[in-house]
Amino acid sequence: MTNWEQIDTYVRKWLKEARINIIDSFKKTLDIETKSDRNDLVTNIDKETESFFVKNIQEHYPEHHIIGEEGHGKKINDTNGVLWIIDPIDGTVNFVHQQRNFAISIGIYENGKGKLGYIYDVVQDELYFVEVGKGAFFNEVPIPKLADTKVEDAIIGINSSWIISNRHIPISNLHRLVHDSRATRSLGAASLEIAYVATGRLDAYIAMRLAPWDFAAGKLLIEELGGKLSTVKGDPLQLLESGTVFVSNVGLHKEILNKYFLANE
Amino acid sequence: MTNWEQIDTYVRKWLKEARINIIDSFKKTLDIETKSDRNDLVTNIDKETESFFVKNIQEHYPEHHIIGEEGHGKKINDTNGVLWIIDPIDGTVNFVHQQRNFAISIGIYENGKGKLGYIYDVVQDELYFVEVGKGAFFNEVPIPKLADTKVEDAIIGINSSWIISNRHIPISNLHRLVHDSRATRSLGAASLEIAYVATGRLDAYIAMRLAPWDFAAGKLLIEELGGKLSTVKGDPLQLLESGTVFVSNVGLHKEILNKYFLANE
Repeated sequence: MTNWEQIDTYVRKWLKEARINIIDSFKKTLDIETKSDRNDLVTNIDKETESFFVKNIQEHYPEHHIIGEEGHGKKINDTNGVLWIIDPIDGTVNFVHQQRNFAISIGIYENGKGKLGYIYDVVQDELYFVEVGKGAFFNEVPIPKLADTKVEDAIIGINSSWIISNRHIPISNLHRLVHDSRATRSLGAASLEIAYVATGRLDAYIAMRLAPWDFAAGKLLIEELGGKLSTVKGDPLQLLESGTVFVSNVGLHKEILNKYFLANE
Repeated sequence: MTNWEQIDTYVRKWLKEARINIIDSFKKTLDIETKSDRNDLVTNIDKETESFFVKNIQEHYPEHHIIGEEGHGKKINDTNGVLWIIDPIDGTVNFVHQQRNFAISIGIYENGKGKLGYIYDVVQDELYFVEVGKGAFFNEVPIPKLADTKVEDAIIGINSSWIISNRHIPISNLHRLVHDSRATRSLGAASLEIAYVATGRLDAYIAMRLAPWDFAAGKLLIEELGGKLSTVKGDPLQLLESGTVFVSNVGLHKEILNKYFLANE
């Protein structure tokens, strides 16, 4: 039997320890290199933080599987056993440029079923936590279930880059959505933006290219609160696949899907 | 002689007092009404906060002039004497939906010359402060002068709504800018976004419609740090006029203006 309580205790301890190292790094010069392109920065701190979690998990749970953004377990293609999906620093561009607005995201699954999720806003020391079936919490305070909202009252999390060009939704449909909604925002850290939907600070979040570590924790949080995640075509998310992600409360999800994403131009 | 030190002491005291009232309001139901349209929310707290500042200023400085977003002094059309330009809650949509990411903005001018500027992130309790000629500070720590950056390395603060439609810059030019820059962000509170430029968290901020109370404090902050503000056509900002605002470090300001804003489509 997996001892989830023990795992939770460890994760919270490791998050706090990782925080100290990350905050310390702000005082030093960051050693930045460019990953696949210049928009995808990676720093030594991303790698160090992933290694820190991997080392600790392997020490305590040698039989668990781990997928991390920085390269650990990239060849894993099934969800058997206990699987940790980790983004050590989600929002690296913000981390480098702003030294805020980034998060550690950890989703833990057992045989494909969500168990625990953590989205930790490191600088704010704010933890979004879900234990599947037992509730979702913001800094220990229970988060209420998501209420339906309408497009005209909604704040939509979407980045301008998707609005000028994307391969999935006609631009004119996205323009209509931006026009019809109350406002749009872009924070630049997917896990935090999903956590913002969970706490009602955004009504929806739309991204055209996310990886499993961007949404593995957020998926559990949103589903626990009665919200919905899908691709922008309305298909279920596949846990181990990258692609489009559309997160919202159920009512708004349906409205946006029908009136904007699946509508003719 | 105007006692600026005394004014500064009062402003800081009033900001803290206003904060307590605002944070308290989160526990109550907000009484929201719609101003000019549904995207321009105003709450009782905006009005209360403005009244609080106006009352205090008038009590201590009856000869000073005050312009506030919520209606005080809207008929003032010159900058004679000491003029306070106040946005009691900049980012009202965020205030209502997120209960964070909004600010109190106060710019104080004497005969049209900037003297003191305050942008106060209420929830974070973070103060961006400038005393013209004596330095700019983030939570009492001096902010370094703005270094030049290039578009390809820049994070641009711009809202999606301007990218789908605006009367000032050809859309295709803005699309090029979004494409060429490292990233775009949108926080939804102009004064804070200008403060983000001041602290290097954003490299530029672009808005197609700001009022004096949105930029009166930020203008002083940016200019103190050697940065530049203008309209998107490159013209100087007029303190008492609403219009487009483009804020950046000097090098990036020139690059964006020439290659994107003033370029042919």
